[in-house]
Amino acid sequence: MGNISIIGTGNMARTIGARAVAGGNTVEVIGRDQSKAADLAKALGSGAKTGEWGTAPAGDIVIMALLHNAVVPVVAHYGDALAGKVVVDISNPFNSTFDGLAHREETSIAQEVAKAAPAGTAVVKAFNTVFRHVLEKGRPDVFLAGDNAQAKASVEAFVKSLGLRPLDVGPLKMAHWLEGAGVVTVSLANHGVGNFDFALSITELPV
Amino acid sequence: MGNISIIGTGNMARTIGARAVAGGNTVEVIGRDQSKAADLAKALGSGAKTGEWGTAPAGDIVIMALLHNAVVPVVAHYGDALAGKVVVDISNPFNSTFDGLAHREETSIAQEVAKAAPAGTAVVKAFNTVFRHVLEKGRPDVFLAGDNAQAKASVEAFVKSLGLRPLDVGPLKMAHWLEGAGVVTVSLANHGVGNFDFALSITELPV
Repeated sequence: MGNISIIGTGNMARTIGARAVAGGNTVEVIGRDQSKAADLAKALGSGAKTGEWGTAPAGDIVIMALLHNAVVPVVAHYGDALAGKVVVDISNPFNSTFDGLAHREETSIAQEVAKAAPAGTAVVKAFNTVFRHVLEKGRPDVFLAGDNAQAKASVEAFVKSLGLRPLDVGPLKMAHWLEGAGVVTVSLANHGVGNFDFALSITELPV
Repeated sequence: MGNISIIGTGNMARTIGARAVAGGNTVEVIGRDQSKAADLAKALGSGAKTGEWGTAPAGDIVIMALLHNAVVPVVAHYGDALAGKVVVDISNPFNSTFDGLAHREETSIAQEVAKAAPAGTAVVKAFNTVFRHVLEKGRPDVFLAGDNAQAKASVEAFVKSLGLRPLDVGPLKMAHWLEGAGVVTVSLANHGVGNFDFALSITELPV
């Protein structure tokens, strides 16, 4: 199983951390607030450890479990400490009305992370179409995108260790349309579905 | 059941027409080439009729089954003949490499149709995430978007008559992100899934 670092101590960090531990992964929790990181690591149990903010994470895969507008600044702050890592961006840069993206250009947080990250760092977009409580309670499909095949394979293996199906959408530029799929998912919740108890998925023929 | 006009005589017109007839709808086929329209109407059977290109369609719902770059010009050509109709745009304005949209701005064919259509015409985006052969053989979810609630309700009733589940994604501006979901679907086929025998869908908890 994998060696995972999670940067962030909020709800999504807790949910991914819990599934990661259950899936047999080694988990490190890193927070700007060391006591919150320690609390989360303790809650996760199974040998989850705490890392030090801003220094090289222990995990091969580093999941940025942060608000979308914090992801690029934190990656820039880490700088060379992320060299050689697989950085996973799970963020949804929604606009204030949740019916579009905060950035109007055809980019994504994941693509901006790739620009900010040191050479030798691979970036993968994943998990952003999944509501947190659905990730906690269900078995949603996990769409992902990235330019580095080896990095994607390791994230796919991690996703499988969580008991979930990874679905490769292609190169990192597809992160823009995955962020758009996040918009579609929230808008479905606010309109036709009327609740948040579902996940975007694929259904294979024959159905 | 509904009263449907289909403008176009290609594969998508045939597939939607066949399901529409099977669902008990009255179907009119309209083509620039009158003989192709007559051939398709005959193939559909069940009283499917042929309309006259450029004059007011018989159906309350008018499905534009055309290549994406033909939709807006044809709507403009029809002009006032579409007043009062529910116009359904099903197109995918893919770029030449199928990894993005042909238009870089944050718009959609459906939104451009709404600008070109006469007052009193309601536009609904629907069906664009569904591969044609999946619509023929399976029971895919049908995502839709539009600003007119009554028009969306009539398209939803039509989708249900086909034995499919309509999923309202919200206002017409969401058509941009549904076109993006079309990009995601094709890119999934070309990458992680490796074939086109699936549909984008939603899976509800508990799963």
